[in-house]
Amino acid sequence: MSIELTILGCHSATPRVNAYPTAQYLEINSRSFLIDCGEGTQRQMRKYKVGFSKINHIFISHLHGDHFFGLIGLISTFGILNREKQLHIYGPTGIKEVINLQLKHSKSHVKYDLIFHELNSKKSELIFEDEKVEVRTIPLHHRVYTNGFFFKEKDKPRKLNITAIKKIQEIETCDYNNLKAGKDFKLSSNEIIQNSLLTSDPEAALSYAFCSDTSYKPDIVEIIQEANLLYHEATFLADKEDLAKKTRHSTAKQAALIAKKAKVKKLILGHYSSRYKDISLFKKEAEEIFKDVILAEAGKVLSM
Amino acid sequence: MSIELTILGCHSATPRVNAYPTAQYLEINSRSFLIDCGEGTQRQMRKYKVGFSKINHIFISHLHGDHFFGLIGLISTFGILNREKQLHIYGPTGIKEVINLQLKHSKSHVKYDLIFHELNSKKSELIFEDEKVEVRTIPLHHRVYTNGFFFKEKDKPRKLNITAIKKIQEIETCDYNNLKAGKDFKLSSNEIIQNSLLTSDPEAALSYAFCSDTSYKPDIVEIIQEANLLYHEATFLADKEDLAKKTRHSTAKQAALIAKKAKVKKLILGHYSSRYKDISLFKKEAEEIFKDVILAEAGKVLSM
Repeated sequence: MSIELTILGCHSATPRVNAYPTAQYLEINSRSFLIDCGEGTQRQMRKYKVGFSKINHIFISHLHGDHFFGLIGLISTFGILNREKQLHIYGPTGIKEVINLQLKHSKSHVKYDLIFHELNSKKSELIFEDEKVEVRTIPLHHRVYTNGFFFKEKDKPRKLNITAIKKIQEIETCDYNNLKAGKDFKLSSNEIIQNSLLTSDPEAALSYAFCSDTSYKPDIVEIIQEANLLYHEATFLADKEDLAKKTRHSTAKQAALIAKKAKVKKLILGHYSSRYKDISLFKKEAEEIFKDVILAEAGKVLSM
Repeated sequence: MSIELTILGCHSATPRVNAYPTAQYLEINSRSFLIDCGEGTQRQMRKYKVGFSKINHIFISHLHGDHFFGLIGLISTFGILNREKQLHIYGPTGIKEVINLQLKHSKSHVKYDLIFHELNSKKSELIFEDEKVEVRTIPLHHRVYTNGFFFKEKDKPRKLNITAIKKIQEIETCDYNNLKAGKDFKLSSNEIIQNSLLTSDPEAALSYAFCSDTSYKPDIVEIIQEANLLYHEATFLADKEDLAKKTRHSTAKQAALIAKKAKVKKLILGHYSSRYKDISLFKKEAEEIFKDVILAEAGKVLSM
């Protein structure tokens, strides 16, 4: 499994008994990320068995309460649980001041390293990278400075064709990394064996685009192009397009238009306004534009 | 009914699926108060049907997360719900800065008046008073500056003895307030009718003492003397008295000793450490010292 996304909360504005605000847990290419952290996220993590120790990187889209009021609680809980590992927080400028002020007043300075990566660029930028995954911002358009996040697996190594390799006695285990990297093999006779005879194409590198909150913003299409999965907020249905524009949110139809233009594989919708009692209407509206639509629900897990 | 206390959350440290941190809703003599506001309080208010519009005064004991991380979310939700009434917040110095900084970064300045009453006195002080109720601080001893709160009904008016009153033709409805206030009645003949012949003693003024978090602190007894109901934290059992002392918390036994010394009518325990799976042990321990012990549980309502 390359990507596993767990929805922890997917509603907008205010937490209700069974409607938690935005938070998602993403596993991608053996890396674990928390995306947004509305009030109650730590409770939802416990409920849906997301191990607290797996979280080393938290990405916060913007500083509206339904996306980050749960962060200080989670940071404090990590401290109470005697966390020692570094924790990286990526979010808008100001997030460090907000968190540190609360830690100061509660005299709860955590013993682990809390490292803030404050964002203020209006252009997409690379904010995380290791050998497995890279994460770029997706500049969005909302009432406050907001980014989505584009998570992409690094290109994977070519797959070894062990049957073919075993036939060449000179190839040793220590050569495998060169083969995985696509290099040809040179025999002691100076004969060259082409890499394509010893390996097959790697699995495709998958990607996940998270976009919340934003008004309809077609220029994000070039960043999220052909993502395997796109989460796009859909606060309203098309009947409230004016309200979406005014509050800088999107309709289900607009989310589907983005999915279609970007040629993503699947679209998952969320951030529903509490005015809608029947969220199946969001799927119905989006499916008129784009065929593969899923509705976010707390506890839903998507794997690919 | 003079006092009705609803427990919204009663656990310590970190929120869990069915264990919410401290928050209580108190109705006393027709006044409504929220006491402490851990993460998830607004969800619990919805669950237990506490009307948001009833809350005009919120008392925060101290700035540890399990007592106030839900406050910013509730304040924001009031804004989203277009609240217009003033909201008064009573809590340690620093609370205003923490809340206002978050409102600033989220560009969510609320449209109602948010009035902070910052506390820093080490002595008990009167912090709220109207014609029905008064509220005094109970200075506690914890790792950060902390107050409990003593809610007391104002003395109630004497009860009119309508049968006796009706026999005196000269007494008119406009005289009733004087009679309720204990004044004698003077007839036009200058004869005096003693108040006690026209009224009976009023109902007793009830009181509620909220004490969380604190180490064992017997000097609070004089403030909470003969309270009708005392909530006292009991984070530990007596087997962890050393840990209670170190972390500046109390044991169930210590809570019961306070109840006994103060001659309160009932004791309600809460703030249980998550290390204890069987909270009935708290009741058992306290009952060895004090007979009328209740265990706080989310959703429990106590009336008197």
